Amino acid sequence: MKYGIAVFPSKKLQDIANSYRKRYDIKYSMIPPHLTLKDPFDINEGELEEMVEEIRNTAKECQPFKLHVYKYSSFYPVTNTLYMKVSENKELLELQEKLDQGPLQKKREHPFIPHITIGQEMNYDELSDVFGRLKLESIEHEEMVDRFSLLYQLDNGAWTVHETFLLGNDA
Amino acid sequence: MKYGIAVFPSKKLQDIANSYRKRYDIKYSMIPPHLTLKDPFDINEGELEEMVEEIRNTAKECQPFKLHVYKYSSFYPVTNTLYMKVSENKELLELQEKLDQGPLQKKREHPFIPHITIGQEMNYDELSDVFGRLKLESIEHEEMVDRFSLLYQLDNGAWTVHETFLLGNDA
Repeated sequence: MKYGIAVFPSKKLQDIANSYRKRYDIKYSMIPPHLTLKDPFDINEGELEEMVEEIRNTAKECQPFKLHVYKYSSFYPVTNTLYMKVSENKELLELQEKLDQGPLQKKREHPFIPHITIGQEMNYDELSDVFGRLKLESIEHEEMVDRFSLLYQLDNGAWTVHETFLLGNDA
Repeated sequence: MKYGIAVFPSKKLQDIANSYRKRYDIKYSMIPPHLTLKDPFDINEGELEEMVEEIRNTAKECQPFKLHVYKYSSFYPVTNTLYMKVSENKELLELQEKLDQGPLQKKREHPFIPHITIGQEMNYDELSDVFGRLKLESIEHEEMVDRFSLLYQLDNGAWTVHETFLLGNDA
């Protein structure tokens, strides 16, 4: 089964992201707006419990982090993706790194660039046009993130949350 | 903000439900297939933490339950809804009742009939046609459910998971 790990930001930020995703993100209906912490990966049913235990421990060891969105950006020409750029900070990077260690280890295909996708697989003309307009708009948003989610993918491509993990929660 | 409480069954059952929902459920893209434990309700941001604490306590007090789907059924003529009928059992009913108590108290608009929707707001002819065919098909599925989710609704009508709760988990 295919799993992934992501942060769902506040409703406010998700609603802003969706106002763009509705038009420009072909995966709009597959998953709510999110910041990916770990790209999709395959694991067998038998490995699930060990992995979840590891993620629970990671969550306890890591701390809530500030999610600061400060501009729109694009991965073009690598991919025709538009996104909200998220500031790096110690807590976020530590969480992301720990989710790539131990039983969760996996070679990353590309460096971690924290972001919230608002458009993907756009044709060049549309990407260029929308990105040109977004560069003129400012966005400045800060919030604290105290949780993240492990999700799995259904046959239709949509994602269901398996479990949420509270950061720094040693209850 | 609008919240709701639901169980997401196994991927296997979700995939079966989606094979119908894709064609017959207008809310197909808003949320993965689920069993509703508590219908959508409004709470203020300030009440969230107390409510979540209450739900955490409820989850600890309740036990995992057997989810047994045994036939297709319909709410017609009350609503033009098709669903997979889920057996009642002590653990499921206890969980559902506790989620309607204390700070979570709310008059139910209709009695609790555990089900997984596979079609809704269908026109009569289609409902009648599909239900006629489904009555000839058998479904028999059992699984253990050890968690449920609190979700909130975005402006576009889609639902995001706020937190998952493990049943009988006194860790």
